[in-house]
Amino acid sequence: MTFVAIIPAGGAGTRLWPLSRRSKPKFLLDMTGAGRTLIQATANRLGGLVDDLIVVTGSDHAPQVAEQLGLSDSQIVIEPSPRGTMPAIGLVAAIVEQRHGSDAVVGSFAADHLIADTKAFQDAVRTAIASAEAGAVATIGITPTNPDTGFGYIDVGEETQVSGSFLVNRFLEKPSLESATRYVDSGTFLWNAGMFVARAGVLLDALAKYKPELASGLREIAKAWDTESRTQALLGWDDLEDSVIDRAIAEPLADEGGVTTVPVSMGWSDIGGYASLAEHLDDPAKQVSENGTQQTVVLSASAGSVVYAHDRPIVIHGVPNAVVIDTGDALLVTTKQAAAGLGGVVSSLPDDLTRLR
Amino acid sequence: MTFVAIIPAGGAGTRLWPLSRRSKPKFLLDMTGAGRTLIQATANRLGGLVDDLIVVTGSDHAPQVAEQLGLSDSQIVIEPSPRGTMPAIGLVAAIVEQRHGSDAVVGSFAADHLIADTKAFQDAVRTAIASAEAGAVATIGITPTNPDTGFGYIDVGEETQVSGSFLVNRFLEKPSLESATRYVDSGTFLWNAGMFVARAGVLLDALAKYKPELASGLREIAKAWDTESRTQALLGWDDLEDSVIDRAIAEPLADEGGVTTVPVSMGWSDIGGYASLAEHLDDPAKQVSENGTQQTVVLSASAGSVVYAHDRPIVIHGVPNAVVIDTGDALLVTTKQAAAGLGGVVSSLPDDLTRLR
Repeated sequence: MTFVAIIPAGGAGTRLWPLSRRSKPKFLLDMTGAGRTLIQATANRLGGLVDDLIVVTGSDHAPQVAEQLGLSDSQIVIEPSPRGTMPAIGLVAAIVEQRHGSDAVVGSFAADHLIADTKAFQDAVRTAIASAEAGAVATIGITPTNPDTGFGYIDVGEETQVSGSFLVNRFLEKPSLESATRYVDSGTFLWNAGMFVARAGVLLDALAKYKPELASGLREIAKAWDTESRTQALLGWDDLEDSVIDRAIAEPLADEGGVTTVPVSMGWSDIGGYASLAEHLDDPAKQVSENGTQQTVVLSASAGSVVYAHDRPIVIHGVPNAVVIDTGDALLVTTKQAAAGLGGVVSSLPDDLTRLR
Repeated sequence: MTFVAIIPAGGAGTRLWPLSRRSKPKFLLDMTGAGRTLIQATANRLGGLVDDLIVVTGSDHAPQVAEQLGLSDSQIVIEPSPRGTMPAIGLVAAIVEQRHGSDAVVGSFAADHLIADTKAFQDAVRTAIASAEAGAVATIGITPTNPDTGFGYIDVGEETQVSGSFLVNRFLEKPSLESATRYVDSGTFLWNAGMFVARAGVLLDALAKYKPELASGLREIAKAWDTESRTQALLGWDDLEDSVIDRAIAEPLADEGGVTTVPVSMGWSDIGGYASLAEHLDDPAKQVSENGTQQTVVLSASAGSVVYAHDRPIVIHGVPNAVVIDTGDALLVTTKQAAAGLGGVVSSLPDDLTRLR
């Protein structure tokens, strides 16, 4: 069996501005002080499981991705423009189908998630691969730790013949707090972490059923990928339909009993904002700037604060749960609570504030 | 009649850190963007009223004071060490007594207060001078605009023979909110702004009555001031008692009916902190740094905020009444409410954070 990991690496990361920028999104950064960037951690934790690894990203980030992971050109797929996760993952699945045949298993893993328990993750991936080999589109579902309203949920059904793998009854959109509490209390719902594992042929045949033009368009480009005609074939990219894999495949296929899920507790986080990031920092009042200069950070009546100092000392007084991020070229002052709404603010900032870093 | 203004210029200004530093206190700064520093504004508004002006300050600030006001050496009195307002004002009064005689009138005006209505101020000073010539220690009392608990209050008695000048029944320490509300509602209480006007001889004779050693010590030094023996005479400075003029003279003399007050409304503020400073800024979200660089300041769901940007743009989200002060060598994040307690925090900061600027 051949197993190829797909790492979609995109997204503006506005909710972690100014640490994360359009030109330097969070997957290219060592967000937690772990000594490696998020995409490096993602690749590392797949080590030993995969036969190959392909990152799909934009042309602006491709050089840094290749450098950080030490990838050859065959391991980088550059999207001409972002069209959502379905064209991105589907194109790589089609390239894998060309290179390794339709029985090769592909697994898609976001570039910017944190996972504390690598062994639990790898065990779950192995189970998902087994489920994929049995013909399913397998997902990895996270046992929820709280009624988070920022995630989609998976309604879990009966266990399948593959031990540890369960049928997905249906996928549920981000719920109200009331619904989320009900889901978590029931014990039969999981967080949808957006990790999909399937045979390349199964994935593309499902896509061909629900979005035939997208499937044939992707297979068309994939056929030309490892030839002299790649650039010409990519002319077809702009005609492809924007779509995300959850909507395009997972939801309709679940209705037909074709999707499974592997429940796992592994200390997972999508670092969706500063409140989430704070939980993964050794020292939330980070006193060391990126260039290594020690800076004094004084917290007075400001418990729970997250501080990134840069080139000057910071004193915070009387602002509990403050989020103060100094990157040298921009300064953000907010709170953990308010930071949840940061995306909208950052999207409307002048271009020079969101691009540079 | 000779009238000499005394401007005591001291104080660490911790409540306006990091704008105000030990090495650059607020009176040396243009805090409001008015185009002049606070001590320059203080000297300007005395223009036309005074025959001479003497600043009493520490050796560290004397050169900047002299430069900002264009003073000659005879207009600067350098305290060997800070001993409170009584030795500072008393020494200058004794020097004036030596130079101009004991009937010369002196008036003490803090270097770091804001006064919006210069004409009302000058009218009040003229009335206070008249009261001083009639033998009183005259104060200028501010008609309160709110029950502020940060000021001392003056309990006002009957009008004296000098029109516009009233007897002081007594001085009251900073009150509780309940007491302050009662004071303001009564209409017979004023804020004590710490401005005193008196004949030099009256002031020193009162001091001689309540603190004879201090009075004789100061007169001793003053005798030697304009001679070759000044430095030697200043050896006696360290033996003087630390004291403030309110306690040393004003309170006991009021009990004997020797103190008057001139009530005035003149848009007075002692800029005791950021909440007070904010009321005097044209644009509280100040977008221009000290070195003149225009910086973007974005306020989102942060009404009432005070922002000093320096060399990088600032985004504030979801922190109403935020106080964000970037001076380039330090960054303060607090709120108007919390800023009232800033003094204690700043006093305990490492030395390099409070000294430099």
